Amino acid sequence: MGRRIGIKDVAAAAGVSATTVSHILNEVEGKRVNPETRQRVLETARELGYAPNGLARGLRLKRSNTIGFVSDQIATTPHAGRIILGAQEEAAKHDLLLLMLNTGGDPELERKEIDLLLQRQVDGVLYASMYHRVVEMPEQLRSVPTVLLDARSNDPGVPSVVPDEVLGGRTAVRELLSHGHRRIGFINNVDDIPATHGRLEGYLRALAEAGLAEDPRLVVTETADAAGGYRAALRLLQAAERPTALFCFADRMAMGVYRAAAELGMSIPADLSVIGFDNQELICDGLYPGLTTVALPHYEMGARAVVQLLALTGAQDQGTGPAAQEMLPCPLVARASVVSPPRL
Amino acid sequence: MGRRIGIKDVAAAAGVSATTVSHILNEVEGKRVNPETRQRVLETARELGYAPNGLARGLRLKRSNTIGFVSDQIATTPHAGRIILGAQEEAAKHDLLLLMLNTGGDPELERKEIDLLLQRQVDGVLYASMYHRVVEMPEQLRSVPTVLLDARSNDPGVPSVVPDEVLGGRTAVRELLSHGHRRIGFINNVDDIPATHGRLEGYLRALAEAGLAEDPRLVVTETADAAGGYRAALRLLQAAERPTALFCFADRMAMGVYRAAAELGMSIPADLSVIGFDNQELICDGLYPGLTTVALPHYEMGARAVVQLLALTGAQDQGTGPAAQEMLPCPLVARASVVSPPRL
Repeated sequence: MGRRIGIKDVAAAAGVSATTVSHILNEVEGKRVNPETRQRVLETARELGYAPNGLARGLRLKRSNTIGFVSDQIATTPHAGRIILGAQEEAAKHDLLLLMLNTGGDPELERKEIDLLLQRQVDGVLYASMYHRVVEMPEQLRSVPTVLLDARSNDPGVPSVVPDEVLGGRTAVRELLSHGHRRIGFINNVDDIPATHGRLEGYLRALAEAGLAEDPRLVVTETADAAGGYRAALRLLQAAERPTALFCFADRMAMGVYRAAAELGMSIPADLSVIGFDNQELICDGLYPGLTTVALPHYEMGARAVVQLLALTGAQDQGTGPAAQEMLPCPLVARASVVSPPRL
Repeated sequence: MGRRIGIKDVAAAAGVSATTVSHILNEVEGKRVNPETRQRVLETARELGYAPNGLARGLRLKRSNTIGFVSDQIATTPHAGRIILGAQEEAAKHDLLLLMLNTGGDPELERKEIDLLLQRQVDGVLYASMYHRVVEMPEQLRSVPTVLLDARSNDPGVPSVVPDEVLGGRTAVRELLSHGHRRIGFINNVDDIPATHGRLEGYLRALAEAGLAEDPRLVVTETADAAGGYRAALRLLQAAERPTALFCFADRMAMGVYRAAAELGMSIPADLSVIGFDNQELICDGLYPGLTTVALPHYEMGARAVVQLLALTGAQDQGTGPAAQEMLPCPLVARASVVSPPRL
């Protein structure tokens, strides 16, 4: 195992010269080769597992057919797989492969690793964050087409793909409104990130569209985990005029809401409707009843970022190509935690 | 944005000839260059973001410094990130990058994609499964060093890295035994995979070591999700002589156990100790009380597979190198769901 099959091996096995094999495998024009010989050489090459030298080809074509995928903290998120898969499958449609790098958010390591990527002559780079945030693109990447993935820059010249947080928040609240809820609480995250501000804006917009006034007592911010959701729900559900439905910033927080409701003797969804955000299937399918939520478009963001990168490369050839800061919708995923409010 | 910086650009900016830049950047020996000029050229190259041509270098050295990472279903598991990260960080120590491919388990796509990888002259391949299983290594990979990751072959000549399921099951049950439990139930998975058989064997071994007889009424198999765990727990906890502790095949199943216990008015851990498997942090940290569990060594498997691959490449040069089928331990992660059994 392990020795790479070369042209000489194919030649020996097919009983022809290495030159003949080379002509056939490299499809050199103007060389006359007996069709049977050609067939035999191609079959032999296939049987032996011969693979043409992609490095030499890349050097000839001045491109490597690879895309660099630089991510900050791939390991700490269950979303990583879907982002990578979306990018990978879209890239594969164009015979492109992904070269993966993880920087762990360390700027010095990032600089060194991006150098490595550029040495491999990648055709472009996806600079991916594992949650939606505002980033500064590393200087080094200005010499190669780059798209930010689940991140955006304050520089409008840098193309990016992010989820539409405002629309996502609005989608969640409209689902509750459509079931007749009017007192809808929002358990938001304390962190100063685009998702926090965007989902709050979506919540307020949906209320306004339904002609409902904002009630500050219905919005509580907490840490974005089950313990935070638990604490927030205890506050909201023990208030004088308690909400009939809760929109949670994250599915993790909704887990704590389920615990609080159980302790208070409230049944979900009969006494309280709950909607989450993220579509973390481990949580949403594991909770009982299943948690209705809004999905982050991870697969789609990965795929769209590759499409943008290809457009950027193509546009450059024509000397044009305005950068796009693209926002993708977050779809509703209905399970069993939202019904009409109880009759009071 | 997007044009690659070449030697000519560096030469123009530094005010020297392209030949001088080439000598300095490629560290050509026997060429005398003024140290100040060398310094200026190196700084200019750095400022402009010049990257040497890795393709040309790879062709010269007959290696690409890349490892192919072929996975079956990267998107459907929250573990993917940690496996990839472990492989990536170990690879980076050796200036190797990962080329990622996902086959989705489709053999035809897999064949085509592995061809693509071999064309890129990868130095070796990690063939990764997203859960521990027995696989047949694709024929094409016999021509390149390959290590199976979270998978193993029935062919002992194929190197692999997998979790030690038996030891993991034993670790979980010993934790319960050490707290004084003697009636320990096991909620196992119905699927015919190594984890199912290994964890059962670990459970039985730990009991035998403690001098406890096997009681078939204490082992229930169910689907490996929260609903399965719920059904199994209802059966075990409503039996005449109910267990004081439950070992669950998966954290997902433990989620259902928590629900069953709450419905039966049992408190975890006071009335029932629970231990899971997988260390799915979303679940283990989200449940209340936090779920004690056994972790799968995903990061470590990724890293060890790269180490094995490098050893394989090195060993080949010396014409030796027995394949290793390596098993890594699954460590206990203690949270708050295991205490001493209630006094009866």
